[in-house]
Amino acid sequence: MDYAATTYVDPEVKKEIDSYFTERFGNPGSFNYFGLEAKNAVNDARNRIAKILNADSDEVIFTGSGTESINLAIKGVARALKTKGNHIITQKTEHHAVIDTCKYLESNEGFEVTYLNVDKYGLINLDELKKVINKRTILISIMHANNEIGTVQPIKEIVKIAKKNNVIFHTDACQAAGYLELDVKRLGVDMMTINGSKLYAPKGIGLLYLKKGVPIEPILHGGGQEFGLRSGTENVPGIIGLAKAIEISERIKKTECKRLSKLRDMLINGLQGKIKNVMLNGHTKTRLPNNANLSFLGVEGESLLLHLNEEGICAATGSACTSRNLEASHVLLATGLKTEAAHGSIRFTLGRKTKEEDIKKVIRVMPKMVETLRMLSPIHVD
Amino acid sequence: MDYAATTYVDPEVKKEIDSYFTERFGNPGSFNYFGLEAKNAVNDARNRIAKILNADSDEVIFTGSGTESINLAIKGVARALKTKGNHIITQKTEHHAVIDTCKYLESNEGFEVTYLNVDKYGLINLDELKKVINKRTILISIMHANNEIGTVQPIKEIVKIAKKNNVIFHTDACQAAGYLELDVKRLGVDMMTINGSKLYAPKGIGLLYLKKGVPIEPILHGGGQEFGLRSGTENVPGIIGLAKAIEISERIKKTECKRLSKLRDMLINGLQGKIKNVMLNGHTKTRLPNNANLSFLGVEGESLLLHLNEEGICAATGSACTSRNLEASHVLLATGLKTEAAHGSIRFTLGRKTKEEDIKKVIRVMPKMVETLRMLSPIHVD
Repeated sequence: MDYAATTYVDPEVKKEIDSYFTERFGNPGSFNYFGLEAKNAVNDARNRIAKILNADSDEVIFTGSGTESINLAIKGVARALKTKGNHIITQKTEHHAVIDTCKYLESNEGFEVTYLNVDKYGLINLDELKKVINKRTILISIMHANNEIGTVQPIKEIVKIAKKNNVIFHTDACQAAGYLELDVKRLGVDMMTINGSKLYAPKGIGLLYLKKGVPIEPILHGGGQEFGLRSGTENVPGIIGLAKAIEISERIKKTECKRLSKLRDMLINGLQGKIKNVMLNGHTKTRLPNNANLSFLGVEGESLLLHLNEEGICAATGSACTSRNLEASHVLLATGLKTEAAHGSIRFTLGRKTKEEDIKKVIRVMPKMVETLRMLSPIHVD
Repeated sequence: MDYAATTYVDPEVKKEIDSYFTERFGNPGSFNYFGLEAKNAVNDARNRIAKILNADSDEVIFTGSGTESINLAIKGVARALKTKGNHIITQKTEHHAVIDTCKYLESNEGFEVTYLNVDKYGLINLDELKKVINKRTILISIMHANNEIGTVQPIKEIVKIAKKNNVIFHTDACQAAGYLELDVKRLGVDMMTINGSKLYAPKGIGLLYLKKGVPIEPILHGGGQEFGLRSGTENVPGIIGLAKAIEISERIKKTECKRLSKLRDMLINGLQGKIKNVMLNGHTKTRLPNNANLSFLGVEGESLLLHLNEEGICAATGSACTSRNLEASHVLLATGLKTEAAHGSIRFTLGRKTKEEDIKKVIRVMPKMVETLRMLSPIHVD
């Protein structure tokens, strides 16, 4: 139940990419049989992805990860537009790839960044957004769905505001892909980030949808691959795997959303019904179908995680990218949670192999676990 | 015969990484069973590579490609030391990943770059290097072996000069790995780039050896993976594959170098013996054992490549990364070749599956091919 951290590679994807490691291993830049074979395969993958995104093929830029795609989008546009303005808008609950990139631009390259507040559900305030836009604003980056609490932002509304003010809009859709709208025209976004490792594709591949005409500087220089925007030999199996993975996830999206929402609600209701003082984090309605983030008051999340792990249940306290340090989640704190409650939160993220019996098991084993830990806890809850 | 463009993944490597796509698929940042399994696997791979490089484990930084490793090394150190100095030294025959990164720093971030000349063999002049170092020099980046002409630079001598002048030294060892010294202590380098896709490991993985204490800024910001120097979910199969691939290539290095040198010399002598006006590019002695770069005067390299391809022989005109445009190779021009001769050059790069019969076939089919093309050529040769 940690599918938001990363997914296994879909067997269909694995089957499709296998021969590209050992037999069809060419460098797409080589002017010979193997090179052309690889080039055609990459072009085909790019076309198939572009079709799903409702974009042109040359608007799909492959990167080495979601993080790299985000860095390219934000630093790339900021640097390209630095003579026009130096103001960027994002929000407090973004992934560190957005926040730390913005902080770097603030401290090293003279940019000013507004980090919008969120309400208790994790939603930004559209009026606040309108207010903070100024003449120097060049870029707005707001994630489609949050990786920790699953809250879905009203992207289309935000896009309208960005467009009206002639500001470029980027969205991190790493967690949204597979569940929410990916049609860039219907969404109206200028840039969108997708990550293979969250989408049953291999690790080490991501992409940036980049609308034609958006001014951008590359962050990696060299051989000029990816229309000059991302140098480095193309990760051919990764690219082909990502195309296949996006096709599969779009094909089963509707049924998976329905199935997982049901399991998610069963999990939330089951745990809240059996255990006292369990609070749902994030929005009750506009949240990812696979995300249940719950605060078990009076319990340390890490301890709970260890006990769950012993029962064969893999979950998370927050983003896998920040589990290294023991700081409370910046996302939960931004929604107004007290540090204690934030420390007692567990993120369950469901996926394709999650079955009803898995949910039932969690509901069965957790009450005793939480009770024991609460007895040992110095924080009194009741 | 285009192994320098990219290699197939060694079957032993493929076998080792397979389960990391589908079963052992955890995110090393996750605090649960799958996460710890992945974290241990990555740590193990890092330790094994560090041992071969004669480095500490935390001096090995995994990246998404050789290009990214080079960008990190050069931009990272330049930005970290910009208050100390703004002068970088490299040479004219570097890969575009080095040259274009340096050009970017010149035109966008106020750095000054000296591109050293090379002699007709592709070697830099150590006296020229000593002369151009000044008080503002912060970084020297010289490749170990050239990707087009195979010339091996005297890295240890260059390191001595860098050290004497207290300047950080980076080497691009993407083509050297598998054939030349990788012991960073014996080489004396501060930073070294290795690329999986040239070393029978998967595409999409590279590494930067970074000596402890070298000041550096990350180029990708986010979750803080790779000791804060390269954010983004670790490419676990790629990392494990790279470790295995480096182990294999070190194990067979001696015998492969011997075997390939012999085949290379057979190819060069055979072609020069059978065809008039064939010039060897690069150094006659200090060159990679697998590289034969030859100019067939009076012939267009691209035409020759097409004819070779029809015979089932895959070769290259220059770097795969620059084959997109039809400009003459900057490497060959730097060695003093006229544009016509540069345009008539073919790079044969041998590898593990190259056999004596392959060499014989090239020697057998090329004379007629070159003769035909020369008859059609407007440039008279004889």
